[in-house]
Amino acid sequence: MRQSTLFSKTRKQAPADEVAKNAELLIKAGFIHKEMAGVYSYLPLGLRVLNKISDVIRDEMNSIGGQELFLTVLQDKETWSTTNRWSEEVVDSWFKTKLKSGTELGLGFTHEEPLTKLMKDHIQSYKDLPVYVYQIQTKFRNEPRAKSGLMRGREFLMKDFYSFSKDEKSHVEFYEKAKGAYKKIFERVGLGGRTHLTFASGGTFSKYSHEFQTVTEAGEDTIHICSSCGTAINEEIFAEQNVCPVCNGKEFRTEKAVEVGNIFNLGSRFSEAFDLSYLDESGQKKLVVMGSYGIGPGRLMGTIVEALSDEKGMVWPKNVAPFEYHLLDLSGGNEKVKAFAEDLYGTLSAAGHEVLYDDRPARAGEKFADADLFGIPTRLVISEKTIGEGKIERKERTSDTPALVTKAELVG
Amino acid sequence: MRQSTLFSKTRKQAPADEVAKNAELLIKAGFIHKEMAGVYSYLPLGLRVLNKISDVIRDEMNSIGGQELFLTVLQDKETWSTTNRWSEEVVDSWFKTKLKSGTELGLGFTHEEPLTKLMKDHIQSYKDLPVYVYQIQTKFRNEPRAKSGLMRGREFLMKDFYSFSKDEKSHVEFYEKAKGAYKKIFERVGLGGRTHLTFASGGTFSKYSHEFQTVTEAGEDTIHICSSCGTAINEEIFAEQNVCPVCNGKEFRTEKAVEVGNIFNLGSRFSEAFDLSYLDESGQKKLVVMGSYGIGPGRLMGTIVEALSDEKGMVWPKNVAPFEYHLLDLSGGNEKVKAFAEDLYGTLSAAGHEVLYDDRPARAGEKFADADLFGIPTRLVISEKTIGEGKIERKERTSDTPALVTKAELVG
Repeated sequence: MRQSTLFSKTRKQAPADEVAKNAELLIKAGFIHKEMAGVYSYLPLGLRVLNKISDVIRDEMNSIGGQELFLTVLQDKETWSTTNRWSEEVVDSWFKTKLKSGTELGLGFTHEEPLTKLMKDHIQSYKDLPVYVYQIQTKFRNEPRAKSGLMRGREFLMKDFYSFSKDEKSHVEFYEKAKGAYKKIFERVGLGGRTHLTFASGGTFSKYSHEFQTVTEAGEDTIHICSSCGTAINEEIFAEQNVCPVCNGKEFRTEKAVEVGNIFNLGSRFSEAFDLSYLDESGQKKLVVMGSYGIGPGRLMGTIVEALSDEKGMVWPKNVAPFEYHLLDLSGGNEKVKAFAEDLYGTLSAAGHEVLYDDRPARAGEKFADADLFGIPTRLVISEKTIGEGKIERKERTSDTPALVTKAELVG
Repeated sequence: MRQSTLFSKTRKQAPADEVAKNAELLIKAGFIHKEMAGVYSYLPLGLRVLNKISDVIRDEMNSIGGQELFLTVLQDKETWSTTNRWSEEVVDSWFKTKLKSGTELGLGFTHEEPLTKLMKDHIQSYKDLPVYVYQIQTKFRNEPRAKSGLMRGREFLMKDFYSFSKDEKSHVEFYEKAKGAYKKIFERVGLGGRTHLTFASGGTFSKYSHEFQTVTEAGEDTIHICSSCGTAINEEIFAEQNVCPVCNGKEFRTEKAVEVGNIFNLGSRFSEAFDLSYLDESGQKKLVVMGSYGIGPGRLMGTIVEALSDEKGMVWPKNVAPFEYHLLDLSGGNEKVKAFAEDLYGTLSAAGHEVLYDDRPARAGEKFADADLFGIPTRLVISEKTIGEGKIERKERTSDTPALVTKAELVG
C-alpha cells in the first residue's frame, strides 16, 4: 500500500484523558481512534493487525474442530433469567436497552445462555456429540473504569469457543487439546515466551480453571510463576495453592500480568438449566458437559503493544504486523532513486509480500520516526547513497544495525 | 466438509411466529437461528454465505479505493446532538443504553456523525482528499415491526461506505464510479437481472438519491420500471417524476421490490455541522463534500432466498453458495461405493473445490431433500448404479435433468 493514499495521519499527542500506553501509541500512530473511555474504533492499519490476530485464532480453533458461527448482540430477558444471570445483582456489567414495546433487552457480554438454548435444536443423541463451536463477535461490558486502552474495553471483539461433550472424560480430553491450541496461538502472535498457563479458581465443576497470563508491567493481575516449569498460579488462589500443581515446585517469582485467555469447565451448569440432554448408547437421558474458551483479539493487540514496544514506538511480531516491509523512499526529488524505489515496491508486491511504501514527499526524519512508531518488522530504505552502491538498506525493527543488501538478496 | 461433522440439523418447521419465506427456509435448513423478531444468529452454513457476500462487497469497495475500518456500536450523545439526530423525535429507531455513571449512550444505526468527527484528525488540506472509507459492521434499529426475516432486522450487518471529496465535481465523478461498483456487486451475487437502479427522493443536496431495488413479491417497496431502459422510479416520487430520467421513456411496469442498496449525496450537511473543512490550493477554507453508500449483506442474503428459491428449497448463485458441490454418498453400506465417494471427495477438495460431502448413514430420500433445501449449485450422487457405469450423477440445482459424467470430466 502506498502511504500517500493512506488517510490516517500520525499525531504528536494522544487525547489528554488517555493513560494506557497501548492506546497512546496506537492512537498516535493512527491505528485506532478513541470514541470514549473503553470504546475504540479501528482505522485501516489497526484493523489489519486485529484481522491478522483473529485469523491466527480462527486457524487454531478450526484445527481443533471448531465450527464458526455468529451469535447476536441483543439478548432476551427470559433466556438469561433461566440461570439467574439477567439480574444486575448477579451480573453487574450488563448494558440493557428496550424495544419500542417496552420489552427489556441486554447486550451480550458472553453467550453461554443463548448458545445452550440454541443447541437444544441440534443435540438429541450421543451421535450428535461432541460439538465444538466458536465465534469472533463484539461483546459489551459496562465497566465502571475503563482506563487500560484495548486491554479493558466496554465494547470489544471476543473469540468465544464452547465445547459440548457427552461426559467428563471426553470433556477433559478436549480441554487439554484446547490448552495446546491456546499455547500455539500465543506463540504465533509473538507472546509465547511471556505467556504462562496459570491456575485460577475453578467454580463448581473443577478445582481450577486455567488462564493464560502475559507478563507486562501494565497488567492488572498478579501471578506467581514456578521457577522450575514456568506454570503460574493466580494471586486469588496463591494463599491456598502455593505449590506448583504441575511439577510440585515451591519457588516462585511474582509478576504483573494480563489475562489474555481463559478456559473453563462449565460442567452441567448450563445444560442442566436449559435441559440440554441427549440419549446415550443405552437410551438413557444424560446432561451434556460443557466448556468455554475465550480470547479477546483486541486485548491481545493491546497486550502486544504493552509487552513489546520500546521508547521509539511499537514492535509487531511478523505474524500480526500490519505489513511485512516498510519501504521508505528517501529520493528527495531524485528521479533515479524514486524509480528504484517504485520498481522495488512493484517487485516485492508482485512476489506476494505485504509492503507499506512511504512514497510521500516528506522529510527523511519524519519517515524514520513514523517507521519506528508503526513498528513494521523490516524497514527498507532507498536513497542516493544506497543506490550509489546498487543496494537497499535493510533494518529489523528490533535491531539498531542496518545492513546493505542487493535486490536479489532481498527478493530471493 | 463432512456433513456428518456439521452440528446443525435441518428441521421440518420454522418457528410458528416466523412469517418471512427467507427466514423460514434458512431456519429449516439450519443456516440461521431466530433469537427474537428481527434478530438472527448465523450458523456455519449461513455464515459461509454471509461471508461470501461480504467478500464480494469488500472486493468491489477496495477496487474503487475504499479503505476498510471498523467503527463502534456505542455512540455518545454529544456527537449526535451536533446534527440534532440524538433526538428520538428526529430519529425514531434508536436503541439507547446507559453507562454506570448514568451517561446515556446509543447503539449506532449509521455512522456519519462519529466518522465526520473522526476525519477532523485526518483531513486538513486539499492534499488529504479524497478519502474513501467503509466498514462491514453490526447496526441496530429499533423497528416496531420486524416480520421480514433477514430483510428488516433490528440487529444486522451493514456495509457502509463514505466518500469525502473536495468539491461537487469530484464527488459526482466518484458517485458514478460507486454506482458502477454496486452494479457489479449485484451481478456477482446473482441478482443482476432483477436489480434496478432506482431514482428516489434526494434531500437538500441533490434532486435524487439512488437505490438499487431487487424485484421480488416479498418486497416492501413499489417501483416503476422503465420499459425501454430498465431504470426504475421509486413510488414515493413517481407522482411528480413519471418520465424516465435516463431515457425519457414514458412506459413503466410496476413491481414489488426490496431496497438492497442506496447511495446518497450528503453534500456539506455533516461537514458543516462538524466543521470538517480543508485549505484549498489557494489557502481558502472549504467544506468537504460527502457521500454515503450502503448495502446490508444479511438483507442481500434474505433477498437472494426470496428471489431465487423454488418449492423445494433455496437456490444459491455460485459466488455466494456455502459450497460449490453437494456430494451425496448413496452407498447404503456398499464399501466399494463408499470408497469411490471418499476418493472423489478427497480429489475435489485437493483440487481446491468446496465440497459438502453427505457421508451420513441416512436414507437417500433424506439426502435428496436436504440437497434441494440447502440449494448448493451442483449435486453429485454416487450410488451402486452410477459406479456400475464408472460414473457420477451430476445435476445442477436449477435443472431437473441429471447427467452421468466421468471423474475425469468432473475434475478436469
